[in-house]
Amino acid sequence: MSIVSAQTKHFLGLKGVSSGEIMSILDRAAHWEQYPAKVTNQFQGKFVSNLFFENSTRTRFSFEMAQKRLGAEVLNFSAAESSVQKGESIYDTVRTLESMGIDAGVIRLKPNGVLQELAENIQIPLINAGDGNNEHPTQALLDFYTMRKQFGAIKGLTVSIVGDILHSRVARSNLWGLLELGAKVQFCAPASMQAPELAEFAPYVSFEEALKADVVMMLRVQLERHNTGLLRSAEEYREQYGLTLERASRLAPHAIIMHPAPVNRNVELDDALVEHEKSKIFTQIAHGVPIRMAVIERALS
Amino acid sequence: MSIVSAQTKHFLGLKGVSSGEIMSILDRAAHWEQYPAKVTNQFQGKFVSNLFFENSTRTRFSFEMAQKRLGAEVLNFSAAESSVQKGESIYDTVRTLESMGIDAGVIRLKPNGVLQELAENIQIPLINAGDGNNEHPTQALLDFYTMRKQFGAIKGLTVSIVGDILHSRVARSNLWGLLELGAKVQFCAPASMQAPELAEFAPYVSFEEALKADVVMMLRVQLERHNTGLLRSAEEYREQYGLTLERASRLAPHAIIMHPAPVNRNVELDDALVEHEKSKIFTQIAHGVPIRMAVIERALS
Amino acid sequence: MSIVSAQTKHFLGLKGVSSGEIMSILDRAAHWEQYPAKVTNQFQGKFVSNLFFENSTRTRFSFEMAQKRLGAEVLNFSAAESSVQKGESIYDTVRTLESMGIDAGVIRLKPNGVLQELAENIQIPLINAGDGNNEHPTQALLDFYTMRKQFGAIKGLTVSIVGDILHSRVARSNLWGLLELGAKVQFCAPASMQAPELAEFAPYVSFEEALKADVVMMLRVQLERHNTGLLRSAEEYREQYGLTLERASRLAPHAIIMHPAPVNRNVELDDALVEHEKSKIFTQIAHGVPIRMAVIERALS
Repeated sequence: MSIVSAQTKHFLGLKGVSSGEIMSILDRAAHWEQYPAKVTNQFQGKFVSNLFFENSTRTRFSFEMAQKRLGAEVLNFSAAESSVQKGESIYDTVRTLESMGIDAGVIRLKPNGVLQELAENIQIPLINAGDGNNEHPTQALLDFYTMRKQFGAIKGLTVSIVGDILHSRVARSNLWGLLELGAKVQFCAPASMQAPELAEFAPYVSFEEALKADVVMMLRVQLERHNTGLLRSAEEYREQYGLTLERASRLAPHAIIMHPAPVNRNVELDDALVEHEKSKIFTQIAHGVPIRMAVIERALS
Repeated sequence: MSIVSAQTKHFLGLKGVSSGEIMSILDRAAHWEQYPAKVTNQFQGKFVSNLFFENSTRTRFSFEMAQKRLGAEVLNFSAAESSVQKGESIYDTVRTLESMGIDAGVIRLKPNGVLQELAENIQIPLINAGDGNNEHPTQALLDFYTMRKQFGAIKGLTVSIVGDILHSRVARSNLWGLLELGAKVQFCAPASMQAPELAEFAPYVSFEEALKADVVMMLRVQLERHNTGLLRSAEEYREQYGLTLERASRLAPHAIIMHPAPVNRNVELDDALVEHEKSKIFTQIAHGVPIRMAVIERALS
Repeated sequence: MSIVSAQTKHFLGLKGVSSGEIMSILDRAAHWEQYPAKVTNQFQGKFVSNLFFENSTRTRFSFEMAQKRLGAEVLNFSAAESSVQKGESIYDTVRTLESMGIDAGVIRLKPNGVLQELAENIQIPLINAGDGNNEHPTQALLDFYTMRKQFGAIKGLTVSIVGDILHSRVARSNLWGLLELGAKVQFCAPASMQAPELAEFAPYVSFEEALKADVVMMLRVQLERHNTGLLRSAEEYREQYGLTLERASRLAPHAIIMHPAPVNRNVELDDALVEHEKSKIFTQIAHGVPIRMAVIERALS
């Protein structure tokens, strides 16, 4: 059974979602991309709450723009100002908002597994905006949208995902969706950043091999999580696993560089590559809004 | 003279408010409860500011939903991000917002007595969202709304309020309103949490006696405020003053459990009672929105 | 060439802006001041983001009211909750919002020089809400609006600016605008708070001399920045550079007191003067909203 339940309209991840469902969301995003300003009052009087138990200005802004463009009312919750500090559980907060009458919740949180349990006990549709290292499905959808727009189709593409696979929900959501869509995925990561349980779905390859792909997706590295071993410094990481100008010069002429942002400039990606002609980073960000409009529309309909 | 001044439309507390005024607010809330979505543009262009010098996500969300459902514009202020940190007084902040042209302010603050003084110097209507241990009138109104809906009438009910009476504005607002409405109020609290000046209005009874009431309202206990004496730990508090499953089994068949939330699960209330059939906790939360719509409408009209 | 570029519509400062441009903004503000409530949907569907890398509740509220009165959608960013904490640069944040499709950005930041560089790399109009000690042009415009309303004209007025000139963007924006409008500006400050590079534009005078002006504008002093020298305490500062009741009694009958707020009561300004009949402090605040409506309208048109 699909994690995108028809009954509750939760949208928790891409694992188990069919290519048909993914494509229908991308198609609807293409519809919304043509109408950048608020063009509909279809959702006037609907309330959507952004429940960010883990802060992310960028992702919250993207969802908030999508919500307001659809004409919905927005309630923003961020952990920094919340009573979670005084011990209130995530469940009680979401249940409280549900009781107040919100129509959907966009939720981002740190622990693994909590979102799935929440979804079983909450009736309003929940949209995953990043949970632990599990999934970040709207990020992957905007990545697919960017790839499809660039190459016309996703089937048959080779996508290299480079960096901290172990902690990356972006890598996982991309993996599940891309395999379903018929792309080939390969990872490139130092041993301490590999996720062994994913090895059966995508091979770990050398950086040289990774550079031959159609898409090279660099992940944000958080070196503070890896304070032992060989990759102690940003300089060392860049040298071994950073996409440098030199390495980028060896990409295929048609290949593109992606990154979920924010970038650690000159760590996983050279400063000069952020707005390079091969880079789609700010294009990805632009695509986030219509993708989220499509996902929210789906939840509220 | 009523604290709810006809001139300024301030809504600072329930002490001195007539049963007729309370009932008219409950009746208007019943009107709004039938229209959960935004149905009016009556207040379009009106600005209401939520001035939370003491943070409370739950209460702010409830007010914000009410304001947006009435079609008003909302400006949120929370102490965490404010220039109060650099020494600006509460008065100057409220006076500044008034000068900018807001039409009403919802205000929550820690110190006692400040709100009354503010109200004498501010022309726009102020609505109390909790001040010190003085009053939290909209919380009590939603409690009354819940009781009236459950029992048909409030007159003649016995309401037990259990916990930290000393520090509780919820207890005080309930006390003043319930007495005016013809209910009997009784308190149950350890000696260190009793408010002696309230003893003439409501007796302190044993937990056994408290359990015989129609409504058992448990208060959130903040043990960090009581670090001496017998009730040193959450376990001890639960044992002596917590509503446990066992104690709840002795409630009258028609009796209900209330709590202003957020609950310390397994301290003042057993986890299994939060969503028990006798518990009205999330119903109370749901009622908060139409109650606040009625109160804000009154301020803006 | 004007810093207010016709091409990009950035509004970064008043240095180099013509009196004609300033007057046209003041005239448009006078138009908006007549319509305090939201009267237009002209900017419906337009998104303005308040990018406050330096927090200021007061200034953000003023801009937010202006934006909402114009019918625009508002996205609030404050540094406290932002991913800037994890090393993201100001440029990347603004560029991200631009990619998402905001139509204009109001920006406030601490470092000097960054805003000018940003403006060269960002296509959407940026409005300066305070940058370092460089400029705070909308504050100066609301000051001019207040002076013009009080005296009928600005040309020929003498304006004394008293306090920490060195660190004050308010002093600088007032200086550039007032000189262009034909007023005489003079500064009064202790040696440690003087800005030598401004001495060629406005003389430093004694407090006695400063008190003879038509407008005495007191600046907020931040004593923590000046922990050496003679002015160690608030008491000492008040004695030497504070506008006391006694000093105010020597002002000309027609003279007015101004202050950008928030006031350190009984430091640079006596408590009894904040709402004195000569004080225009809350009037200035009220004027901030129509001034910012005029500036935002200009950016979005």
